Amino acid sequence: MRPRIALTLGDPAGVGPEIILKMLLNRELHSQCDLIVFGEPTIVDRCRQHLGLTVPDSLKIDRFDLNQWQKTASHWPGGLAIVDVGSIGQKNFSIGQVSPLCGQASYDYIQAAIDSALRNEVSAIATAPINKEAMHRAGIKYPGHTEIFADRAQASRWCMMQYSELLTCSFVTVHVGYAEVPRLLTIENVFDTIELTRNAMLRLRNKEPHLVVCGLNPHAGEHGLFGDREEERIIVPAIERARNLGMHVEGPLPPDTAFVPWKRSSTDAFICMYHDQGHIPVKALAFDCSVNTTLGLRILRTSVDHGTAFDIAWQGRAQTSSMEAAIKLAIRLSIDRS
Amino acid sequence: MRPRIALTLGDPAGVGPEIILKMLLNRELHSQCDLIVFGEPTIVDRCRQHLGLTVPDSLKIDRFDLNQWQKTASHWPGGLAIVDVGSIGQKNFSIGQVSPLCGQASYDYIQAAIDSALRNEVSAIATAPINKEAMHRAGIKYPGHTEIFADRAQASRWCMMQYSELLTCSFVTVHVGYAEVPRLLTIENVFDTIELTRNAMLRLRNKEPHLVVCGLNPHAGEHGLFGDREEERIIVPAIERARNLGMHVEGPLPPDTAFVPWKRSSTDAFICMYHDQGHIPVKALAFDCSVNTTLGLRILRTSVDHGTAFDIAWQGRAQTSSMEAAIKLAIRLSIDRS
Repeated sequence: MRPRIALTLGDPAGVGPEIILKMLLNRELHSQCDLIVFGEPTIVDRCRQHLGLTVPDSLKIDRFDLNQWQKTASHWPGGLAIVDVGSIGQKNFSIGQVSPLCGQASYDYIQAAIDSALRNEVSAIATAPINKEAMHRAGIKYPGHTEIFADRAQASRWCMMQYSELLTCSFVTVHVGYAEVPRLLTIENVFDTIELTRNAMLRLRNKEPHLVVCGLNPHAGEHGLFGDREEERIIVPAIERARNLGMHVEGPLPPDTAFVPWKRSSTDAFICMYHDQGHIPVKALAFDCSVNTTLGLRILRTSVDHGTAFDIAWQGRAQTSSMEAAIKLAIRLSIDRS
Repeated sequence: MRPRIALTLGDPAGVGPEIILKMLLNRELHSQCDLIVFGEPTIVDRCRQHLGLTVPDSLKIDRFDLNQWQKTASHWPGGLAIVDVGSIGQKNFSIGQVSPLCGQASYDYIQAAIDSALRNEVSAIATAPINKEAMHRAGIKYPGHTEIFADRAQASRWCMMQYSELLTCSFVTVHVGYAEVPRLLTIENVFDTIELTRNAMLRLRNKEPHLVVCGLNPHAGEHGLFGDREEERIIVPAIERARNLGMHVEGPLPPDTAFVPWKRSSTDAFICMYHDQGHIPVKALAFDCSVNTTLGLRILRTSVDHGTAFDIAWQGRAQTSSMEAAIKLAIRLSIDRS
């Protein structure tokens, strides 16, 4: 069974269309999976002309509207496809500009891809970047992909994970203000993040993974010298529960020494208490090659590790390495799951 | 004028004595400065015997007690010296063990070095690691070197800076619990940290430095989507005040993208809101070569970027690169200051 990976086009005004177009032209990927883009063919065409790219005659890209795709998916022979979600249609938008029109479109593409995944027409979704401000201007109040997917495809629990060959981090809290983090940490959700991460890494590594859990406070609280003993009250009991189930879990470690080189090389994944605790080292060390994924959902979802980059949109300068990594991780998780 | 660098021995049970001994045997350093160790000659001798090291006959190390040093310092011809602070004396201690005896001794060495610096007998102090738990057991309630020095040698304001060739970060808050940070941030202390850092980097770079200020929240709050608008209320006004004085200050940047490779290469120093925001990338990228220094004090002070490492104490395995970097930064700051 070839994995079928859905791609969302992302915010049309950002780097998404260029990156998606380059995935459709990437023959190395085609040998590994089918690619189905949820977006609008008119935007992909406009981007292709803008960049002066040509699609070789030998490359067949099927085009469907939403209804056609739903009717065809079960007997489609595979290959490449663009599904027209029909959000922007003939309306105009400005490249590199935040707009509610593009915010709404990026959201519509995601919803269409989720619908398809929930009907088991695709095995995973890899998402191009969206712009939160554009979505908010369109009246859509999600802080990011993770939360949209959690709402539509949530099992009992979920967490975000940043995966790369160099460093992998998963998160107990993500898109919340700095000050809100301490009261959001519970033994339950620290444990859930440990267990979801362990299950994903076990699938990817084919052996029991070694996990490191970071403390919340500087020096992991240094035995109560700093902070409100969040380590002793919340993190340690969660770690003990995981260890009692046979998981290999170390910590809570001082967050700053957790990511030193020799610790990174012996650790399969780090459990982080808040967004920047893990995103700072991932972006410092693995900017162009890390992948965002949401664990614990009913559908597999991976995503690029960068934003819409409006300043370089539609200029032929966007890096495609993160989207390639996102698709490859989606493939691996799809295959291992089946 | 040769710089005179005071060294403190650190916690006797940790890696400090071995590292200090190796500095006394390091001829490259001797060509650049005088070294005066504040500690106890008996401990240095015991460590030397333990490691099976010999001091070449050609290497002259003067020995003084505290009184002798105070009387001699002004007409001492320079070279190498150990000043006997006489804290542990004939009492015994266990290598690699936390003890109040060693905590008290490490504190006494620092105080003796500060006394000497305040009498202008040395131009700077480079400190070996102390163990906070050992100091606390001795009834000494400081969280670290920074605060000890601030109490004895404080000008109107101070901040901690982690300096390395790869990445330099200074800190608005340091050794406080995670949850305390938001209410400790003020326009005044963010501005003070910017200005102290700018002054130090101007001295080291010999040109107006480019500074980056990090936000507090994920994505620097993303225009109020996360957090309590700490960026708009506190950080932005501090940056504007610095810019009005002609400083080159960028920010507030999302903390995770602030430290990507191309941003690091164009930035002389990062202003961080809390301990782990800067310590995570410094230790991930520059573990063995970064130096801790306190800006704004009446005396220059640099320090190794690692702890007492009790697990490898007195085994000949301690890295000396961080102490060498600390001494060299102390030399550069001493020379530029005079």
